[in-house]
Amino acid sequence: MILQLKPGTSEQLAHELAERFSAFCVFDGGHFLLVTSSSQHQADPETEPYVERIQTFTDDMQLSSRSWQKPTREVIVGNSHFGNGKTTVVMAGPCSVESEHQIREISGMLVEQGLGTLRAGAFKPRTSPYTFQGLGKKGLELLLKMKQEFGLNIITEVRDSTHIEEVIEAADIVQIGAKAMYDQGILRRCGKSDKAVMIKRGFGSTLQELVQAAEFVMSAGNLRVLLCERGIRTFETKTRFTLDLCGVAWLKEKCNLPVILDPSHAMGYAYGVPDLTRACTAMGVDGLLIEVHPDPANALSDASQQLTPQQFRDLVASLQPIAQAVGRKIS
Amino acid sequence: MILQLKPGTSEQLAHELAERFSAFCVFDGGHFLLVTSSSQHQADPETEPYVERIQTFTDDMQLSSRSWQKPTREVIVGNSHFGNGKTTVVMAGPCSVESEHQIREISGMLVEQGLGTLRAGAFKPRTSPYTFQGLGKKGLELLLKMKQEFGLNIITEVRDSTHIEEVIEAADIVQIGAKAMYDQGILRRCGKSDKAVMIKRGFGSTLQELVQAAEFVMSAGNLRVLLCERGIRTFETKTRFTLDLCGVAWLKEKCNLPVILDPSHAMGYAYGVPDLTRACTAMGVDGLLIEVHPDPANALSDASQQLTPQQFRDLVASLQPIAQAVGRKIS
Amino acid sequence: MILQLKPGTSEQLAHELAERFSAFCVFDGGHFLLVTSSSQHQADPETEPYVERIQTFTDDMQLSSRSWQKPTREVIVGNSHFGNGKTTVVMAGPCSVESEHQIREISGMLVEQGLGTLRAGAFKPRTSPYTFQGLGKKGLELLLKMKQEFGLNIITEVRDSTHIEEVIEAADIVQIGAKAMYDQGILRRCGKSDKAVMIKRGFGSTLQELVQAAEFVMSAGNLRVLLCERGIRTFETKTRFTLDLCGVAWLKEKCNLPVILDPSHAMGYAYGVPDLTRACTAMGVDGLLIEVHPDPANALSDASQQLTPQQFRDLVASLQPIAQAVGRKIS
Amino acid sequence: MILQLKPGTSEQLAHELAERFSAFCVFDGGHFLLVTSSSQHQADPETEPYVERIQTFTDDMQLSSRSWQKPTREVIVGNSHFGNGKTTVVMAGPCSVESEHQIREISGMLVEQGLGTLRAGAFKPRTSPYTFQGLGKKGLELLLKMKQEFGLNIITEVRDSTHIEEVIEAADIVQIGAKAMYDQGILRRCGKSDKAVMIKRGFGSTLQELVQAAEFVMSAGNLRVLLCERGIRTFETKTRFTLDLCGVAWLKEKCNLPVILDPSHAMGYAYGVPDLTRACTAMGVDGLLIEVHPDPANALSDASQQLTPQQFRDLVASLQPIAQAVGRKIS
Repeated sequence: MILQLKPGTSEQLAHELAERFSAFCVFDGGHFLLVTSSSQHQADPETEPYVERIQTFTDDMQLSSRSWQKPTREVIVGNSHFGNGKTTVVMAGPCSVESEHQIREISGMLVEQGLGTLRAGAFKPRTSPYTFQGLGKKGLELLLKMKQEFGLNIITEVRDSTHIEEVIEAADIVQIGAKAMYDQGILRRCGKSDKAVMIKRGFGSTLQELVQAAEFVMSAGNLRVLLCERGIRTFETKTRFTLDLCGVAWLKEKCNLPVILDPSHAMGYAYGVPDLTRACTAMGVDGLLIEVHPDPANALSDASQQLTPQQFRDLVASLQPIAQAVGRKIS
Repeated sequence: MILQLKPGTSEQLAHELAERFSAFCVFDGGHFLLVTSSSQHQADPETEPYVERIQTFTDDMQLSSRSWQKPTREVIVGNSHFGNGKTTVVMAGPCSVESEHQIREISGMLVEQGLGTLRAGAFKPRTSPYTFQGLGKKGLELLLKMKQEFGLNIITEVRDSTHIEEVIEAADIVQIGAKAMYDQGILRRCGKSDKAVMIKRGFGSTLQELVQAAEFVMSAGNLRVLLCERGIRTFETKTRFTLDLCGVAWLKEKCNLPVILDPSHAMGYAYGVPDLTRACTAMGVDGLLIEVHPDPANALSDASQQLTPQQFRDLVASLQPIAQAVGRKIS
Repeated sequence: MILQLKPGTSEQLAHELAERFSAFCVFDGGHFLLVTSSSQHQADPETEPYVERIQTFTDDMQLSSRSWQKPTREVIVGNSHFGNGKTTVVMAGPCSVESEHQIREISGMLVEQGLGTLRAGAFKPRTSPYTFQGLGKKGLELLLKMKQEFGLNIITEVRDSTHIEEVIEAADIVQIGAKAMYDQGILRRCGKSDKAVMIKRGFGSTLQELVQAAEFVMSAGNLRVLLCERGIRTFETKTRFTLDLCGVAWLKEKCNLPVILDPSHAMGYAYGVPDLTRACTAMGVDGLLIEVHPDPANALSDASQQLTPQQFRDLVASLQPIAQAVGRKIS
Repeated sequence: MILQLKPGTSEQLAHELAERFSAFCVFDGGHFLLVTSSSQHQADPETEPYVERIQTFTDDMQLSSRSWQKPTREVIVGNSHFGNGKTTVVMAGPCSVESEHQIREISGMLVEQGLGTLRAGAFKPRTSPYTFQGLGKKGLELLLKMKQEFGLNIITEVRDSTHIEEVIEAADIVQIGAKAMYDQGILRRCGKSDKAVMIKRGFGSTLQELVQAAEFVMSAGNLRVLLCERGIRTFETKTRFTLDLCGVAWLKEKCNLPVILDPSHAMGYAYGVPDLTRACTAMGVDGLLIEVHPDPANALSDASQQLTPQQFRDLVASLQPIAQAVGRKIS
């Protein structure tokens, strides 16, 4: 249940009321809101003097639902606009930061393509302890260097709560990976930050759980949340995962958060990435995450799914007319 | 293993050899072929005098694999060309034939849109015995009437082997439904027919099984096979199924059969069908199956997922520029 | 909705009423029943004079539901009792009939173990056309020979509608395989037979669909239906399928049909079959299907999952005390 | 690859070698081991003087594989023995610690049943921010109180890295929940602890990933790891999850860690828990986790799946003869 407080309610009063009625206090669109469980369907009569709008829900998709706020919640990061309905932001880069040389080559290529966001992992959430785990803090430093040198926005992943502060500090968009989607230590900390946050859907997670992960961040005060579909795990093993575009259609219909797609991780093989990226673009989504590496065959992680710079250039060129056909442009 | 017989081998000799070496005999691209299990990796030395090309395989995707024949196997049905790389054929119509009035209204609308193929079910493979099971033979007669009246190609489904003759007789494209994908009675009978055959992937079936179903038809002699992805069953329940576009990318890469997509059944809800259809079109596929009904709310089956005629017209109009962006046109 | 007609209603009147009210007419437990869709919640007032009990349902699990008939529907086949709550019937044999020698060896071993039902396939529903497809009619003849020689009940599979008559003729229990679960040609024909019918759950099929498949047979008049869980397809690939014992718990709670388990197909590897079979026995189920072959390594199908005769003997010996612990005995 | 150092190698030298050859250093069964990626198949020739046994692997299941160490790695916690092949340890309690009264009632009941391990969550990994999140530190204190009062071992869950120290401090067995299975912050910290660690398989996680999570803990030095199967997410929605007993058979065959089963979470409904628990017991597993609550209907979390004390007593009584039938006893 969301209770929208009357205009002019002070922040102090809003927080007092939230505490009194065991609610989260969120400042959203010029109003203070009290947010409680969706299982609550009746407001305490004592709230009446303060409240100007009440809405009940059938599940815990509340702040993120179009039934509460119809328009998409626009998230602006530097020059990138997510959710304005007019752009599809292409974020690209290698799976992992491996070296300064590597990351600079990709950064230059992005700028050359007119793209403004660099993606690359410093803390890699590998499933085996015996494989490359990322450069860690050193990787973050290299990303910051690229930011300064090329003016790029940085999106990078937090693996677990132990290095959340460093990632929030370094990133323009904090990526919560598929394997960390339920991590409340991360979600709540991001809720206290003013950085944009992109939550990747766990490969075994329902859409409902994805939006509820967003509600953790939003109820803690940070409404700058992006949702990312990156493929779910199914019985089919010819491809790495199964990109759930039906789920994207549902998100676009029911949820007011911008939607990002990651066809690289879904497919797992470079040969399918261009076709899938074009499909995602034609869906009219707010952003794309594409893996590109100067030398995919020798990448330290996810070698099979990263595009070469030339494949990437060809792909971006092919996206523009599709974006235009659905009223958007690539940026 | 496929053994391609030398040019000029007579049909009689080809069949004799097939019997002698326990192989299927298929006439493909001007050659007689002997096809055996992929577990066979060595040809009988006695075949040597007759054979000009031998290829072994790692699995039972043989005639349908691009490693055997690189170019897509084009299937022409009336004016519709599947697999020429230049067109995406839109096949549309209601889930079930319900009445002459209903099916005529849709047929007229297709012609008006410049589309040439009517889809509608007469034998419905429902999961419950207590729901509408289709008009059966009466439904086929109505479809034939539309064919004569409007010059439309007809694609309609065979539910089980008991009415396979009637469907082969009536249809231009015999649809083997998702629930009948393993039905060897149907597959083998279609292999003896010269009608085009579209095999829908079972919602619990792997891509490997789908191409192997095609191999049943092809090894029996009919190479005019289309494959259709219509959504697989996953843990996500917000949508009816999960459209597997990663799988489509795999099919396009590995398999030489034309690929058709059915976003209506995958999504299960009309609201998502336009976005998904645009995504499928941007993939560069050979055909689309779209459900449209004069009055979806009162449809006797699949009410929630059928478009209204107006929604369908708007959708088709929006597809043309996307098809063009990937070098195709809607037809 | 089920309408139970008053005692003494004649068969002729029952069928007339069924036709008049578009219902299935079923004779169940001494009463004629009219069965309609569960979406119908109000009986036609004109039925009132004939009806003594009306029950509505929330889904199309009707005749098979415990809410309609609480006790399990016992199915007796020769000396085997399925569903009496006191026995777990072990049905065993090779995946496929391969030769008279092979099938006789297994038959002798069953008799020696005090077991009364032989399972073996004559028509194999293989996914590839290039592998062993079963001996067909010849296989049925060998099974009948074993029946005569050893007094065993025969359970064997129908692959598609084209040979349903032969299988009904030969089998004591007609097995509808996982890949044929939706085949209405088979289901309806079995509904007109008086043979016991075992329906295997499709590996991509929900429990709801499984019981609805049973409703096809039951609404056509044959109430002698067994349900078999044999593993569903999931993302896990270390084992062939995932045996769904949670689903079995649901079936036991909600459905009045006897439940059979097939751990051999679920596991796909002989090493896990004994443990799983013991688990199934401890669930208190009505029957078990176990694959055993005189020489598994050289089996023509499913080589990896069949037990040796010695492994099978050891397994059966280990089941007895577990069955006893849950109030049953192996038979 | 695992390199077992010669007897008498000093700890210091072992660590020096590990650093020099980029390996993990683990003390296992009286030997120092150097563990590297399984992709390494050739030891550095310079290691030769120090090494007495080398084993290569095909995947990153190394320390936990039976091919490295055949016997199960026994884990002893107080009086409870996991993995000795003779006992099945029943760990029971409510989903969440709710109050002192509640947790004391259950503790008393456990002691009365002769059981030695209390399970209950203090930090609950809920998917929605708007539901009960557990008592946190207060919950841990109540668990410690029960430990002192009743002499029970405590198993409780860590939700994310932010409170890992408190849980390690309080628990006898640290439970890493299904949603935290990939959390390297937790896994590595547990690897430095001497507490037993139970890793629950994520509901979307493969068996391979589960054992690799264990390898994170083991390679960091802690070999006291238990694996828990608690149901995976599939397309079937009649039950909460699908308990993967085929997977358990695989774990028992391939992996040397004790296996625990949690039928309560898999089923999601109390009615199925007794049958499933009996099935698990007949599998011959090392432990069971069962949810029991003084008043399930009013539980603050997982109300539907918790047994009443009386149901629990009846269940435990029924397990003893089954355990005995497979050569074990309940403890």
